[in-house]
Amino acid sequence: MYINILPIYDCHSIAAPATDLYGAKRRETTKLYHFSFVSMDKDATRKVFLNEFEPLREDLLDVIKSYSMPEEAIKWFSDSFSYNVPGGKLNRGLSVVDTYAILKGKKVNELESDELKKVTILGWCVEMLQAFFLVADDIMDKAEKRRGHPCWYKKDGVGLIAINDSFVLEGAIYVVLKKYFKKEPYYVELLELFHDITFKTELGQFLDLIVEAEHQKLDQFSMDKHDFVCIYKTAYYSFLLPVALAMYVAGIDSDEDMKQVHDVLIPLGLYFQNQDDFLDVYAPPEILGKIGRDILENKNSWLILEALKIASPEQKKILAESYGQQDAECEARVKKIYHDLAIDKVYEKYEEEQYQMLSQKIASIDESRGLKKDVLTVFLNKVYKRQK
Amino acid sequence: MYINILPIYDCHSIAAPATDLYGAKRRETTKLYHFSFVSMDKDATRKVFLNEFEPLREDLLDVIKSYSMPEEAIKWFSDSFSYNVPGGKLNRGLSVVDTYAILKGKKVNELESDELKKVTILGWCVEMLQAFFLVADDIMDKAEKRRGHPCWYKKDGVGLIAINDSFVLEGAIYVVLKKYFKKEPYYVELLELFHDITFKTELGQFLDLIVEAEHQKLDQFSMDKHDFVCIYKTAYYSFLLPVALAMYVAGIDSDEDMKQVHDVLIPLGLYFQNQDDFLDVYAPPEILGKIGRDILENKNSWLILEALKIASPEQKKILAESYGQQDAECEARVKKIYHDLAIDKVYEKYEEEQYQMLSQKIASIDESRGLKKDVLTVFLNKVYKRQK
Repeated sequence: MYINILPIYDCHSIAAPATDLYGAKRRETTKLYHFSFVSMDKDATRKVFLNEFEPLREDLLDVIKSYSMPEEAIKWFSDSFSYNVPGGKLNRGLSVVDTYAILKGKKVNELESDELKKVTILGWCVEMLQAFFLVADDIMDKAEKRRGHPCWYKKDGVGLIAINDSFVLEGAIYVVLKKYFKKEPYYVELLELFHDITFKTELGQFLDLIVEAEHQKLDQFSMDKHDFVCIYKTAYYSFLLPVALAMYVAGIDSDEDMKQVHDVLIPLGLYFQNQDDFLDVYAPPEILGKIGRDILENKNSWLILEALKIASPEQKKILAESYGQQDAECEARVKKIYHDLAIDKVYEKYEEEQYQMLSQKIASIDESRGLKKDVLTVFLNKVYKRQK
Repeated sequence: MYINILPIYDCHSIAAPATDLYGAKRRETTKLYHFSFVSMDKDATRKVFLNEFEPLREDLLDVIKSYSMPEEAIKWFSDSFSYNVPGGKLNRGLSVVDTYAILKGKKVNELESDELKKVTILGWCVEMLQAFFLVADDIMDKAEKRRGHPCWYKKDGVGLIAINDSFVLEGAIYVVLKKYFKKEPYYVELLELFHDITFKTELGQFLDLIVEAEHQKLDQFSMDKHDFVCIYKTAYYSFLLPVALAMYVAGIDSDEDMKQVHDVLIPLGLYFQNQDDFLDVYAPPEILGKIGRDILENKNSWLILEALKIASPEQKKILAESYGQQDAECEARVKKIYHDLAIDKVYEKYEEEQYQMLSQKIASIDESRGLKKDVLTVFLNKVYKRQK
């Protein structure tokens, strides 16, 4: 399978020059059409998806019970699963279901119950993988809150046991895959996909941690590291994994098709995170739902990297003195330079280029083996010009 | 495969009443014979095994390099692999090689180079699994030293990044398995075996952590928890895993044979750790290579559990006041009670019973599908009456 033997990823191919294939009006139309295509029964999908969590948690607890673990252990893992697995936006998990429906040319509520169950369970496996990463990331980042609640390791009596709990969340994925997919012809591919993407995410997380741990100065920031972290730490498991899982269940899993979705979803994942960096500074906090902290926290952000490319020596000096200083005045000075450099316009141009480039890639997708362009268009339209 | 659908493990079946099947003289003879069988080329085996580490590390670094990670990341993982994977006694890894040789009825140096390579690589996978556990355990236990050197997380510049490094050590197992075993008919079984035993070990580690975190008092100690931790945290990955891996390579992997080795190696692993508890107090430090600290550190040890079974109310009161007090006089009072209760004799009786029971189980092993009793006898004789 292509996905398991991914060649060297060439970041530079992402920023291919955009053409003017689609105009703004056409884009808007496409966007509205595609949103309606999957989101018609969005709440119903979420409900179906959430309903499957409790039985899955029971399955996992049954396995643990079967080892005769004491009652306190059963309760602990029950709490850990409930606290850490649901509670996020569930976008990744829901994407497995939505993608599968598009591949089958059906609405979610038209799917057979056994195929719906399969993709729902795989969606929860993605959410469990994310829970594994987040529980551990919060410890490494010394974070206080996650999804508005104390981080798991910050809960009374948990502490560093959370490291082992993160392992158990990861291990639970393979318990679930074995129980529900052992007899499927694509079982090995599922295992290898999770292994491969887990490993890549860990490498991305490493680079993110090391950049942070070294308290790197502006002149050590680089677009290469930035892109690597975006792609490896997030894009693989958030964008490619859900789609690839749905493709295996749908039997559309040739190397060629896996490569086709990879070559759209990975640059899309990078664009998504550059957009995150843009929104952190430029989105109104009341819409974004948080107050951006990237400048204060010395984030190796797309905005600062772009600003450094075009800043004058004087502006660079101010940026070097002010960026990452945990000080509101310093932050304001950085924002002033962003304004003077019209970085928002640089971003808008970048966003248009990404949209054009990705639209073009999607337009040239070969659907002959059953892959649907819509799978990718839906993702692109969710990202393009999002406000939060 | 049986190993992946292990039924409820019944701890109580372990302590089956011993019979007097073998006398002491016969045992000694057996022991000498079997030690010579595998240890004739023990140093050579170790050398072959160690020689394979460097190429394997290079393989892993090549994969990481293929993702275009920056040079500092390659160096980091190179250091992490070298620091954390070799450097232990390598007993688990070497067991894969030794077991395979016995199954094939050959000496290690008589094995074909490709089969030797396979079992050596699987041996290193066991060592990587152990490295994953130990790097993380040291963080959770707030340990200072491992194998006479600072723990990995205690090294300058590492800190909590070690959590992610432990993930990468685990992930590396599946990179290696895919590279070397993807085409083998037992590839899925290898993946499931690692998943299954990793999960069990994590459950065992949890119970060990929670017993410690709760600073449990003597009256909360229990033989059930003690046995669970011994079996799940250690016996599965240290005893069963190496043998099961060798069996897959040798093609002796029926459910029946997996069950046969399970039913000897798991109780043997428990006996091994109870023996550890005995040696902690009773072995001369100059032979053991360390000064026992179990009484000082409130360990839920086999010795204290046995002492509590037979102690008088007065003795129990002294034990409750003195056990786990980090005080030499308290420790001496506990040792005095062990002496008065002749706990060493209780242990010796237990050891004989275990030896008899396990010998009997081994004697009744069905070798008709290719399994060899010698595989298990070698393990038993390495454990029986060991001094350190």
